[in-house]
Order: sequence, then structure tokens, then C-alpha cells
Amino acid sequence: MKIPRWKKAEFEEIEYEPASIKEILREMKSISELIVDLAYSAILFHNKEIAEEVRYLEVRMDKLNYMIRMMAMLAARTAEDAEQMAAVLQIAEAAETISNAAGDMVKILSLKLKHPILPRLIRESDETIRKLTVDESSKAVGKRIGELHISSKTGVRILAIRRKEGWIYGPSADIKLKAGDVLICIGTDEGLEHLNQLLKGSIEVLE
Amino acid sequence: MKIPRWKKAEFEEIEYEPASIKEILREMKSISELIVDLAYSAILFHNKEIAEEVRYLEVRMDKLNYMIRMMAMLAARTAEDAEQMAAVLQIAEAAETISNAAGDMVKILSLKLKHPILPRLIRESDETIRKLTVDESSKAVGKRIGELHISSKTGVRILAIRRKEGWIYGPSADIKLKAGDVLICIGTDEGLEHLNQLLKGSIEVLE
Repeated sequence: MKIPRWKKAEFEEIEYEPASIKEILREMKSISELIVDLAYSAILFHNKEIAEEVRYLEVRMDKLNYMIRMMAMLAARTAEDAEQMAAVLQIAEAAETISNAAGDMVKILSLKLKHPILPRLIRESDETIRKLTVDESSKAVGKRIGELHISSKTGVRILAIRRKEGWIYGPSADIKLKAGDVLICIGTDEGLEHLNQLLKGSIEVLE
Repeated sequence: MKIPRWKKAEFEEIEYEPASIKEILREMKSISELIVDLAYSAILFHNKEIAEEVRYLEVRMDKLNYMIRMMAMLAARTAEDAEQMAAVLQIAEAAETISNAAGDMVKILSLKLKHPILPRLIRESDETIRKLTVDESSKAVGKRIGELHISSKTGVRILAIRRKEGWIYGPSADIKLKAGDVLICIGTDEGLEHLNQLLKGSIEVLE
């Protein structure tokens, strides 16, 4: 049996990673923004793979919250420091609550309901979600998202990019694609397939 | 003393508004997506006005959750219905948890901290947030967001539009602006002022 990515992450030991409070807080902010989007997408499209990403991010968030608490305590030398750090921990706590709520949402997908009503209730269009991988043979490798005209040519919206173990949330037009990037995309079947052709190297440009 | 909008909403009686489970669930989804964005924006830009919108949406979400529970119970006639409705309520509950967490974040702004550390920690650019109102004399009235070229000419991102008592979250390019619309916008001071000139009718187009 394949062990899901979040499950593996859950049993990794928490190591002291040298990161600043600033970096951790920014990652927590990004995750809490992305995870809500991903959780609804998982429900809407009844997609267990996206649900697994949500669980992974939820576990990652737990760790970040643990780390930021440790760092806040180490950073606070004066009463004034402590007051500032208390504010930091309040934001961190809220970010974790948000990611836990998103995790609760996707648990529905593991219940074996016969007629899932939710996609029918919430889905507004004929859009779907897919994970697309950038092949090293693709002409998209090394190009910026903006110069590929993905949005105007395919109508596809890139929610996030998974690059190695990290994430780029809501990527801007100037992000360059790399071979091996996994793009989490929302669009119509045709739009997604069109983009997929480019990313796997079957076509050279989006017409 | 001016009573804030959320405070007024909190003491309104809950009336049975004839809306479908579908409509309520979609509004809850939209609010939970928007409110996270707004809460971080309120913290980042130390903006109490935006924080007040967050509190308002939090109160609105409480009501929606109450309404959807009532409707789910009325809708469930069979065990199978009840199973479906339990899934709906699980999503609704998570959406409310998210909005409560966002509300907790902005409570920091009512603490009188001397040196707010959070904007410095999280802000990534020189962007700021402003509420801009569309004047009836503006050439933007009746135009679609897309045809005004707001994004390309000013760099401003419209988070949401408040129209009368309702909200349009993450408005798409084909939304037409109306006189009296309040736009919650993120951008640089120059970009925002440029857009403001158009919306208050001082200039006719964005150059």
C-alpha cells in the first residue's frame, strides 16, 4: 500500500530548521490562503489527489506553528518583545485553525457516500481540476507563465505549483516553469488538455 | 459614537430568508475565501476599516450557518437525504470556523500595541489597500472591469466589490461597475490614486 505524502510527513521528526520568524509566518500565510482554495476544489471536483495535498499542507502547518512558537519564545527578551510575539502567535494560531478546517472539509471524501451532492451544489461551471506535470522536453521549460499566454489561450487558472518539496502559491506571470514542476490547474477539459499538450512536449506553442 | 456595521448586523433578528441551500452554501464558500484575504490585508496594512468588513462578514457567516442548519433539517426526509445533508453541514461548519479564525486575526488591531511588528514581518512590497467608491459622474459606470484595463494600466487588484448590502468576491473581467460600488483594492499608492481619479470622475480613461 502506498503511504500518502501527508502521512509520511506526519511521522517525520520535528527538527530545528534554521528559518526566521518572518519566513515561517509568510509560509503560514501562503498555506492558509491556498489550502481553503484547494479544499473547496477537492470537494467540488471530488478529487482525492487534491484532498491529499490538503492533508499534507495541514501537517506542514502543524509543524510551522510548533516551530514559530519555539522561535517566538527564544526571541522574546523584554516585555515589549513578548507583546509583539504574542501578536505573531495569534496570527499563527488563526492560520493553523484555518488549515485544520480545510482538512476537516476534505475528510468528507473518505466517507463512502453514494451520491455526492456537494459538487452539484457548489460547482458553477463545467470547470475541472487537474495536476499537470512539466516534462523536460516541453518548450515551456524556462519560460515565464506570462509569455506562454496560458490564461488567454486556454482559460486555465494555475492555483499553485509544487516544485520539489516546496510550493509556489498563486504564481505570478513572471514565474519561470521548470522541468518536473507539478501545476495544479482549474479549467475546462479542453483548456486543460490544450495546456497538457504543451507541458508534455506534444505541441510547441499554445495557439 | 458610530455603531460599526458588524455590530448592527449582530443584533438584527434572524429572519427566514427564502434562499436555497445551494445559494447559502455558495455564499459561505465565497465569504470563507474572501475573508482570509481580507483579514491578512487588514493586518498587513493596519487598516481598521477592512478589519470592520471582516467582522461584518464573520457575523453574516454565523447567520448563514444557522440558516443552512435549519434548511438542512427541513430538507432531510429520508436517511439518505440526511447523509447528504450531514456532508453539507460539515462544509458549512468548516467555512464558519475559517471565518471565525479570520475574525480572531483582526482582533489584534483593537489591541493598542505601540510598534506593530506584523506589517513589517508579512508585507512583501510597497502595496497598500484602499476602499474606492464609484461616483455616479465617473466614466467607469456601466463599463466592464475588463474594458477599463484596470490591471494593466494601474497594477491594482480588486479583491471584492461591495454593492448595496451584497458582495462580489474576486470580480471577473466581465462585471460591470455601478455608481455607489465600493471597491476593495490592493496596489501601490500611485496605482490606487490613478484608479481613484477615474472612479471619482476626474479623468475619463486610464492612460
